[in-house]
Amino acid sequence: MRVLGIDPGLRNMGWGVISVDGSRMGHVANGVIRSSAGGGLQDLAARLSHLFAGLCAVIAEHRPDAAAVEQTFVNKDAAGTLKLGQARGIALLAPAQAGLAVGEYAPNAVKKTVVGVGHAGKEQVQHMVRVQLPGVVFDGPDAADALAIAICHARHLQGRSLREAGSRRGVA
Amino acid sequence: MRVLGIDPGLRNMGWGVISVDGSRMGHVANGVIRSSAGGGLQDLAARLSHLFAGLCAVIAEHRPDAAAVEQTFVNKDAAGTLKLGQARGIALLAPAQAGLAVGEYAPNAVKKTVVGVGHAGKEQVQHMVRVQLPGVVFDGPDAADALAIAICHARHLQGRSLREAGSRRGVA
Repeated sequence: MRVLGIDPGLRNMGWGVISVDGSRMGHVANGVIRSSAGGGLQDLAARLSHLFAGLCAVIAEHRPDAAAVEQTFVNKDAAGTLKLGQARGIALLAPAQAGLAVGEYAPNAVKKTVVGVGHAGKEQVQHMVRVQLPGVVFDGPDAADALAIAICHARHLQGRSLREAGSRRGVA
Repeated sequence: MRVLGIDPGLRNMGWGVISVDGSRMGHVANGVIRSSAGGGLQDLAARLSHLFAGLCAVIAEHRPDAAAVEQTFVNKDAAGTLKLGQARGIALLAPAQAGLAVGEYAPNAVKKTVVGVGHAGKEQVQHMVRVQLPGVVFDGPDAADALAIAICHARHLQGRSLREAGSRRGVA
């Protein structure tokens, strides 16, 4: 199966697709959809439309079976939070419109799953993504984050299916 | 021409369509797209998808030539602002995807245009919307707000085209 991870942002929307085969993972593709800030008010709608079209194109090309979006850590000012919310709405909509279930993970949950500790730094996360996806080259920090989210979602889906298999066998 | 106004919200997305012929306005339709709160995390994506599909259906049915969305008055807590941002992203995306330019107006600008004062109450706004759109029946308060936004946008578009006509004639 293939898992899409998305790190939402209005300026930079990071995405990453991984393949999952049992406990083995592989890198498929990653990138950043960029929407530069425009001056006028109408540009916001155009920027969101550009991000949406970009994510739809990624989904159409790489055909993921599941998707996950980073849960926003709300530590910005209100205007920044609103902007992030708008980008996040697009990040959740695109996979949902493609019929995918969309998981959400807080940044600390992603770090805990990928690195082992919830307060790992960016470099540690990127190092562990490289270890788990040999040969990967990041399109940028947001793409690396998106791959980490995809890895996190894949691990959680594996854990869930193992638990479900266990309970079917009467083990759990 | 027809103008679509949208009052964004995650739970209640208000919309209203008016017709504009010179300085005359008429009511076309109004409504509220409702997305009830779900328990699980995946429901947020499904709710946004439901709101997007509803707005796309409104645009397909009523074929507006222009659209406007209320600019959010950020006075909520961060979690509320993020939710509103997500809904607002959808409200901006739907008309943009249909090829419409999307205007944005702060609530006070809407009140100033529709009522004449920037700090008018809800009842005053609804009264003036009824005066300007005779026979209108509101689907709810959010739909009434959406019609007020459509009226505001129509007035601004009229002012702009009058100014442009004036400057073409060398008057302005």
